[in-house]
Amino acid sequence: MTVATDLAPPLDVVRWFNTPQPLALADLRGRVVVLHAFQMLCPGCVQGGLPQAQRISRLFPAEAVAVIGLHTVFEHHAAMTPVSLEAFIHEFRLTFPIGVDRPSEDGPLPQTMAAYGMRGTPSLILIDRAGRIRKHGFGTEDDMRIGAEVATLLAEPADQEIAASPSGS
Amino acid sequence: MTVATDLAPPLDVVRWFNTPQPLALADLRGRVVVLHAFQMLCPGCVQGGLPQAQRISRLFPAEAVAVIGLHTVFEHHAAMTPVSLEAFIHEFRLTFPIGVDRPSEDGPLPQTMAAYGMRGTPSLILIDRAGRIRKHGFGTEDDMRIGAEVATLLAEPADQEIAASPSGS
Amino acid sequence: MTVATDLAPPLDVVRWFNTPQPLALADLRGRVVVLHAFQMLCPGCVQGGLPQAQRISRLFPAEAVAVIGLHTVFEHHAAMTPVSLEAFIHEFRLTFPIGVDRPSEDGPLPQTMAAYGMRGTPSLILIDRAGRIRKHGFGTEDDMRIGAEVATLLAEPADQEIAASPSGS
Amino acid sequence: MTVATDLAPPLDVVRWFNTPQPLALADLRGRVVVLHAFQMLCPGCVQGGLPQAQRISRLFPAEAVAVIGLHTVFEHHAAMTPVSLEAFIHEFRLTFPIGVDRPSEDGPLPQTMAAYGMRGTPSLILIDRAGRIRKHGFGTEDDMRIGAEVATLLAEPADQEIAASPSGS
Repeated sequence: MTVATDLAPPLDVVRWFNTPQPLALADLRGRVVVLHAFQMLCPGCVQGGLPQAQRISRLFPAEAVAVIGLHTVFEHHAAMTPVSLEAFIHEFRLTFPIGVDRPSEDGPLPQTMAAYGMRGTPSLILIDRAGRIRKHGFGTEDDMRIGAEVATLLAEPADQEIAASPSGS
Repeated sequence: MTVATDLAPPLDVVRWFNTPQPLALADLRGRVVVLHAFQMLCPGCVQGGLPQAQRISRLFPAEAVAVIGLHTVFEHHAAMTPVSLEAFIHEFRLTFPIGVDRPSEDGPLPQTMAAYGMRGTPSLILIDRAGRIRKHGFGTEDDMRIGAEVATLLAEPADQEIAASPSGS
Repeated sequence: MTVATDLAPPLDVVRWFNTPQPLALADLRGRVVVLHAFQMLCPGCVQGGLPQAQRISRLFPAEAVAVIGLHTVFEHHAAMTPVSLEAFIHEFRLTFPIGVDRPSEDGPLPQTMAAYGMRGTPSLILIDRAGRIRKHGFGTEDDMRIGAEVATLLAEPADQEIAASPSGS
Repeated sequence: MTVATDLAPPLDVVRWFNTPQPLALADLRGRVVVLHAFQMLCPGCVQGGLPQAQRISRLFPAEAVAVIGLHTVFEHHAAMTPVSLEAFIHEFRLTFPIGVDRPSEDGPLPQTMAAYGMRGTPSLILIDRAGRIRKHGFGTEDDMRIGAEVATLLAEPADQEIAASPSGS
């Protein structure tokens, strides 16, 4: 195992909402990142995943845990444009930063979704303070478990993972 | 009080989903009509009103109770086009007929919404077997109460209201 | 089919709570009766059936619908005495009349529970305005359906069933 | 602040359920302890606190987190005897160890409840791996927050608190 293969791929985003400037995972080292991939017309996202992401962002301080939404449209592209998403974010009172995943030129899956190998929406990715993927969930997640998992990552030293890696890179 | 003022205004719809042909209230005499006005980006509709409308349509036989959705877009018009609505209906597995309320040329409120004097979404209108409005609710409705109200209307003779009307029309 | 076999058996109760005097079904003719059989240590009753019975009693006026609880202890008899039940009723803020089913001398099932042929708790019995059993449910009930069923019985004339019975007795 | 005042008082229990032998906090050093104080006829306990305690016991491994129920009867003593509690534990499928708090001779509050200064039921106490009280909650608790709080305590070294204490005792 090498660190390189574990590092979370960069976010390839064409437009951001709820943030004055684009976000990059590399700038978030030291923080735990909760990456929630959703589609605005996905019932499991609207009724489960997004309210949960909002709860995570309320529970943990932003300087410790960065909650990021990723709009990974892989179906009904004409129905889920950034114009529609903007109204959706407003109406559903979502306050954490949300990026629009870059569409692919040769297939339905957007770029970041493909890079992470996500199976669909909702997906929940936990990235530790050293930038590595530590959880990759698909579907409904339990509130208590997510709270425990985020807190566990938060309790790790920011540089622990790199030191612990056999390859040392 | 005259019957005329009580009769539910006609539905002014530009496009129908989930029905092979346009619906008209006049053709539904003898049935109780549950008219659910919603917007696809309204949280109270998505998380409360629409699932309830679906439950009503499952509980009562279609030949006795007609559940009709009405997409009354009065804000974010560009975000809630019929193209988006079609994907929404598919993803949320809505099976009852849904009409798109006709936009107004001189204001944000669509035509049927204005004719009914609806205050917003979700709104729930109950129309009795004689075509008259018997309930006009705005906001979240209680399942048990709605079940009782629909059943009460269903138990009335189809021609009771006309006979009971002072004007006799 | 004769009316006699359909009439709800009388309630055999050793102690009443929440009512100044004992209740008899015969005195409730003209009203719809919702009979909810429960045990205070039955999870399905505490978490589902009893809150639902309380909602029924709040929704319908008492002069039209009589909600009656029946404590049908058929297991853990020493743990569910009337002394415990009294504290339970107080703590759970139950306000409708509740009777304690009379224990049997030769078996675990109490008398009324046996007479009705109940399978366990929670059980929900609907008795029409003429005193006949119209529904006998076991387990969790849906709020909308119960609301509709009670309202349907309420809409019937008080003497309809007797007239409709083939035997006419 | 001294360690002595922070150490959780011992559990004064007259009878245990769901454990082959009595539990003592002193024997649980190294584990996080979740102490859930309840009464079997307290609605907030039955509908909220106890199901949550059961979820905690399922989520975390027993060798890391010890969930302990404490039956702190301070009202309706005749209605909540150990005989009733035993049936309650069986019917509600509670699997974690539960102790009966020792009644006081001169007042309604049982001994452990008084020693902890609990305000009522449900109460949730979190005790760290060094035996010190770190949270004392009264009323409904949020699942995500509890998951995070337990995980945070679990991530601490077992001897951290003593070293960190100013008094060094």
